[in-house]
Amino acid sequence: MVRIIGIDPGLRNTGWGVISQEGSRLTYIADGAIHSDGDASLAERLLQLHSQLADILREFDPDEAAVEETFVNTDARATLKLGQARGVLMLAPAMLKLPVAEYAPNTVKKAVVGAGHAEKDQVKHMVKLLLPKARMRTADSTDALAVAICHAHYRGSQRLADVLARS
Amino acid sequence: MVRIIGIDPGLRNTGWGVISQEGSRLTYIADGAIHSDGDASLAERLLQLHSQLADILREFDPDEAAVEETFVNTDARATLKLGQARGVLMLAPAMLKLPVAEYAPNTVKKAVVGAGHAEKDQVKHMVKLLLPKARMRTADSTDALAVAICHAHYRGSQRLADVLARS
Repeated sequence: MVRIIGIDPGLRNTGWGVISQEGSRLTYIADGAIHSDGDASLAERLLQLHSQLADILREFDPDEAAVEETFVNTDARATLKLGQARGVLMLAPAMLKLPVAEYAPNTVKKAVVGAGHAEKDQVKHMVKLLLPKARMRTADSTDALAVAICHAHYRGSQRLADVLARS
Repeated sequence: MVRIIGIDPGLRNTGWGVISQEGSRLTYIADGAIHSDGDASLAERLLQLHSQLADILREFDPDEAAVEETFVNTDARATLKLGQARGVLMLAPAMLKLPVAEYAPNTVKKAVVGAGHAEKDQVKHMVKLLLPKARMRTADSTDALAVAICHAHYRGSQRLADVLARS
């Protein structure tokens, strides 16, 4: 059995979701969102995100981490912000010696829905189907669960088809 | 007396430079560069940068940190990379409760050279003039010393003019 944490990074709102995988069986463990205070300095905000994620890693003790490889094309300043958040969020599991995988948004959608350009609602629907007990507290934590499912799909020899066949 | 570390972030090469400020007097302490292994995973590279900078902070024990606010306009992927490096580098001093200031490249040049669009050589020349003992081991560490000088200029009521008048 392996525990996976999925992370959907953002400087203001970061989603996280933890699942376990045993053979082809996925089980929901928890999901939620962490936030940084928009009025704080950038360094303080990065510290807030990092220490909140470190707490979650301590609480749920995952074996592997997967992070969504989002980036914003339109605005260099926004991309830099996202990168900074993403950096400290990837660092937290790396400091605990967890392997940290990255998946492009299209890869996540393809693994969860079967198509690279799925709508948000479709992703949500499939996450619910694959993880019936998922609370999916926020849109970001739903995305984080999708990233965790994507990693479960790609990490072993097992195919998502098997998972889908069981659901 | 206050000790300032300047940081010029990059995923492959990050420059750092430590100076001390006492009244209007600046003194060179050390400078150097840290690197991440291009063959390692992104998470490992971020961990390499973060832990090397943490070692430097332990060794030189600065009171305040200043980071160059560079960003690349041309390529979102490059900007994201830089952001990730910058995030973990800002986090290291923040974890030690050091204040972390940010300065745009033009602000650094203006503080050190007196013009926002100075050449690299001019910056190097002024760093040498202000910090005669500076070793300036790499181009990145020279820039990091310039960032530290810039912070010394802006942090207090003291003007760079006073520093220049003494040199």
